[in-house]
Amino acid sequence: MKLVGNYTERIEERLKQIPFKSKPVSLYEPCRYVLEGGGKRFRPLLTLLGAGLCSGDLDEAMPAALSVELIHNFTLVHDDIMDGADSRRGRPSVHKKWDMPTAILAGDLLYAEAFARLSVYGGDSASSPRYSRLNQTLIHAIRTVCEGQALDMELEKTGDVTLESYLDMISGKTSALISAALVMGAIVASASDDQIDLLERLGNRIGLAFQMQDDLLDVTADPEKFGKMRGGDIMEGKKTCLYVLARQRGSEAQRVELHKKVHLQQITEKDVDQVIGLYEETGALDAAAERVEQCYRQAVELTEQFDDSVYKEDLLTLLNFLHNRDY
Amino acid sequence: MKLVGNYTERIEERLKQIPFKSKPVSLYEPCRYVLEGGGKRFRPLLTLLGAGLCSGDLDEAMPAALSVELIHNFTLVHDDIMDGADSRRGRPSVHKKWDMPTAILAGDLLYAEAFARLSVYGGDSASSPRYSRLNQTLIHAIRTVCEGQALDMELEKTGDVTLESYLDMISGKTSALISAALVMGAIVASASDDQIDLLERLGNRIGLAFQMQDDLLDVTADPEKFGKMRGGDIMEGKKTCLYVLARQRGSEAQRVELHKKVHLQQITEKDVDQVIGLYEETGALDAAAERVEQCYRQAVELTEQFDDSVYKEDLLTLLNFLHNRDY
Repeated sequence: MKLVGNYTERIEERLKQIPFKSKPVSLYEPCRYVLEGGGKRFRPLLTLLGAGLCSGDLDEAMPAALSVELIHNFTLVHDDIMDGADSRRGRPSVHKKWDMPTAILAGDLLYAEAFARLSVYGGDSASSPRYSRLNQTLIHAIRTVCEGQALDMELEKTGDVTLESYLDMISGKTSALISAALVMGAIVASASDDQIDLLERLGNRIGLAFQMQDDLLDVTADPEKFGKMRGGDIMEGKKTCLYVLARQRGSEAQRVELHKKVHLQQITEKDVDQVIGLYEETGALDAAAERVEQCYRQAVELTEQFDDSVYKEDLLTLLNFLHNRDY
Repeated sequence: MKLVGNYTERIEERLKQIPFKSKPVSLYEPCRYVLEGGGKRFRPLLTLLGAGLCSGDLDEAMPAALSVELIHNFTLVHDDIMDGADSRRGRPSVHKKWDMPTAILAGDLLYAEAFARLSVYGGDSASSPRYSRLNQTLIHAIRTVCEGQALDMELEKTGDVTLESYLDMISGKTSALISAALVMGAIVASASDDQIDLLERLGNRIGLAFQMQDDLLDVTADPEKFGKMRGGDIMEGKKTCLYVLARQRGSEAQRVELHKKVHLQQITEKDVDQVIGLYEETGALDAAAERVEQCYRQAVELTEQFDDSVYKEDLLTLLNFLHNRDY
């Protein structure tokens, strides 16, 4: 992906400058490990672009961007424990490399560091409403992400998942922080309520597209490139859009078969292949791809409503990149 | 304990009014369970008294008090997972009553709710420096609590624990949030830097006294009343002040014996009794009691430096109550 600005390098650089102490080693080493693990950094990028779209200063938005990325990483560390996911971005997850208590604590620390990044906006009384609004936006996003993760775990235990509850779940788990990322950039830029509203909806579309695409990539991507095992969601009994769509579109027999496979105590590779087969036969794969398509189209339309700028150009490039990603 | 103000009832009432949603049930039910579990509520009480000591309004300090109590409860939920503690305040801990993922997530949500309580101080630009300072104080406390917990877990794995590293650990794990509780009350009251400094030191003394007393109660209290198993710290290999003092005061043979017992893979009730025997023989129990005494005395001296008021009276009553507690 070639953007006009070298945002990602700047984000990486600033993440490295977060002043983690050297001791206690068991707390700060895992935190550094997490942040050095790479990732697309596309949430903080969205914060910078959100500021740019609203004629704000990107450097000024950087602490907010870092804050969002820190919250994202805290949720990954804790989610990996909850989901029993042993690898992340091609490396052992924190609870696997160290242990579960270490991972809980590292997540808790990253969480505090996220709020610490916002302190720069609280310096003088002129910036107060902005500081307060940034905090509130972040708090609301975290609350919604927690709700989404709780729903996700609740849905794992049931077979009867509607498209509506699935969308509720990913709106929380994935969209909330993406919306917050864009909106926080806009808040730094002192954007209008209309602009903030637009960005919130844009974030929602990107989030839905991104998560459904993740669901698709779980069964279609090259595991090496994707950094996760093929069919990992199926193994974990996750209720993905593929599961929901296959249930919606399948025959009674296919539904029963799907339910049985996904809720097996011990699921084998062969079972995973059969579930993927059901996703193909029922047309769930195509239907999901079409939904992803539609969400990205809506995201582009929402982006088009902003005045022309290099940030708009870059956001369109980013959307195109995300749309075409295969990992 | 009879205080002039009915603070604790007001704190309980306000905790009940925190607007947790009804769904997802798996997220909000455990959060309510945690807050309904009682506890001494002495951290939020300190916030109110901190405000009162500095001529502030107690009602105005209430959201800051709730914020501190929410952070305290989040740390308890996560600590219980990390420490494998199955009960808390005489009831099953969250990860025991539900499961570990549920407990991680409930802790994460309480954490966000703590920051949410501070939002009321961010309303108008006049209150900005105060809002910013409250956030920073809370963030600093959380960071220090995480450091203390990490140190605690590091010390569990080693036998060679000095009094210095023990004090470092409990300054983080226990004192940091108690200091923050007092200081946040003072910040709401727009106190002077001298007053804030005094309260920070006072919090440190109370924290040290409280934690060393907890260490003592672990072996001396009525388990029923204390809500924890007798010798639970010994079973978990925790490095308490008793362990540190017994090592400091014991003969070489006693040190070797203590080290051996505390690091057993499988520790029996008989081993626990023998460790407690060593604590008696080496004089560690008496030495610890004396240190607790000294810290409370210093806390009283620091409190005496404030102007006379009902809050000062109540704080002295509280210190006396804590000093004499047997649970």
